[in-house]
Amino acid sequence: MQVLLADKYGFCFGVKRAIRITEKIAKYNPHTLTIGPLIHNPLEIQRLQKDFDVHVQEDINNLGQSKSVVIRTHGITKQNLIELQKKGVEITDATCPFVTKPQKIVEEMSKEGYKIVIFGDSSHPEVRSVMSYSTDIPIVVGNLDEVKAIKRIPKKIAIISQTTKQIEKFLEIVQYLIANSLEVRVFNTICNATFENQEATRNLSQKADIMIIVGGKTSSNTKQLFLIAKAHCEDSYLVEDEKDIQNDWFIGKKICGITAGASTPNWVIKNVEKAIEALNID
Amino acid sequence: MQVLLADKYGFCFGVKRAIRITEKIAKYNPHTLTIGPLIHNPLEIQRLQKDFDVHVQEDINNLGQSKSVVIRTHGITKQNLIELQKKGVEITDATCPFVTKPQKIVEEMSKEGYKIVIFGDSSHPEVRSVMSYSTDIPIVVGNLDEVKAIKRIPKKIAIISQTTKQIEKFLEIVQYLIANSLEVRVFNTICNATFENQEATRNLSQKADIMIIVGGKTSSNTKQLFLIAKAHCEDSYLVEDEKDIQNDWFIGKKICGITAGASTPNWVIKNVEKAIEALNID
Repeated sequence: MQVLLADKYGFCFGVKRAIRITEKIAKYNPHTLTIGPLIHNPLEIQRLQKDFDVHVQEDINNLGQSKSVVIRTHGITKQNLIELQKKGVEITDATCPFVTKPQKIVEEMSKEGYKIVIFGDSSHPEVRSVMSYSTDIPIVVGNLDEVKAIKRIPKKIAIISQTTKQIEKFLEIVQYLIANSLEVRVFNTICNATFENQEATRNLSQKADIMIIVGGKTSSNTKQLFLIAKAHCEDSYLVEDEKDIQNDWFIGKKICGITAGASTPNWVIKNVEKAIEALNID
Repeated sequence: MQVLLADKYGFCFGVKRAIRITEKIAKYNPHTLTIGPLIHNPLEIQRLQKDFDVHVQEDINNLGQSKSVVIRTHGITKQNLIELQKKGVEITDATCPFVTKPQKIVEEMSKEGYKIVIFGDSSHPEVRSVMSYSTDIPIVVGNLDEVKAIKRIPKKIAIISQTTKQIEKFLEIVQYLIANSLEVRVFNTICNATFENQEATRNLSQKADIMIIVGGKTSSNTKQLFLIAKAHCEDSYLVEDEKDIQNDWFIGKKICGITAGASTPNWVIKNVEKAIEALNID
């Protein structure tokens, strides 16, 4: 069996930057906290804890003795940021700049009177952080059907996307809104790394007969890669590390494609790759 | 053969309004001029000349002794309007309000630094009038291929459509721009009458085996109706009046659908309908 890596995969700019920032801060600040997991990869979170004494805390009112707090790549809500600033802790912002951008767009557009529509998952921390910058509650939609169910489409809309979504799905929603509204301001906030990883996954999954997507199970961009792979290659599997791999998936397969989410560390991908190559499959 | 009229067809709000305004002005002003044809229907233009002494003049520098000038439904360029205002003639503005709207959008958006993209025909008077309100020269595109041929897609775009275009084609272009730009402000300037006439034509042409589209040959919206009809019913014909009708088109046909552009007067449609019903076809 041939094992092929996607042309683009793994750590994106924002994730690399957040880890670099966090490691640097943690060197001089014992028991640094991140508000929620820094990135959506439990293995990398474990490594940061073990090697850098960095811990995850979801609740900003439960910081204990920690004096150093890092804001996760996905950002936090505006309200939480204000609360945090009152607590006298040192705040390091590791929010991905591609998330800061939609936060600013939402703040500005809602002030200008546009109704904010966000294509994304309303329970995802990135979307929650972006939503919080609107002066009124934005409309969050996960798919076209949810848009069609909106009773009164606002006349002036500003729409953005969660950075890790698929452009095709975003455009479907935008199309519907344009046809049913007077003005739609469209901000293409899907990040380039997402776009490139998705393109590479699409290409690879068209020639592979099994696809392994390596990444955290709560990672939005990893889930999108899985969905794209699955659309072209029925035998697609999402694994967090090499332990998730099952021997029988590979029986009779000729080409195994591997890709990984933007929050998946390279060492995890390497372990998966080695484990697959070591499989005793004819 | 059954003869069916589309559910919506013919004169739109803007055309009715322009004719009403022009007839009223012409009653008290002999030899009133319109700058270019008031609407794109030569038969109605002839009627206005014959019954109301209203004449067409393309050149604003050739007004002769006329003291009363009407601006056509499609509008004129900003520069021509300024020139005209210096000439001491009485100006009556019959520009369709659905054209005034994109003029204003283009003026405002170009001042705000957005590159203007217009989906339309650059030789059409409406597009020429709308274009002239931009602070720099807008990009005018007639189809998706022309958009794909743009070497550098601007980062901040405001896009509008000629009022009489098809929404599907507009959305194709918008999609491409969103995927290749940072911000796209989309103004759905396709007018409702256009949309409704197109919908009705689409429905009728799906059940008819011959379609007759009545309207001026330079009328953009009539041409769109023809293209829509043709997509569903191979035997579609564009006629200006009953004289264009050919007997042999109808041989063996069971359902004849009739529709008409937004600038086609009802009396012309009636004549066509009568002529078809009088055909000696089994």
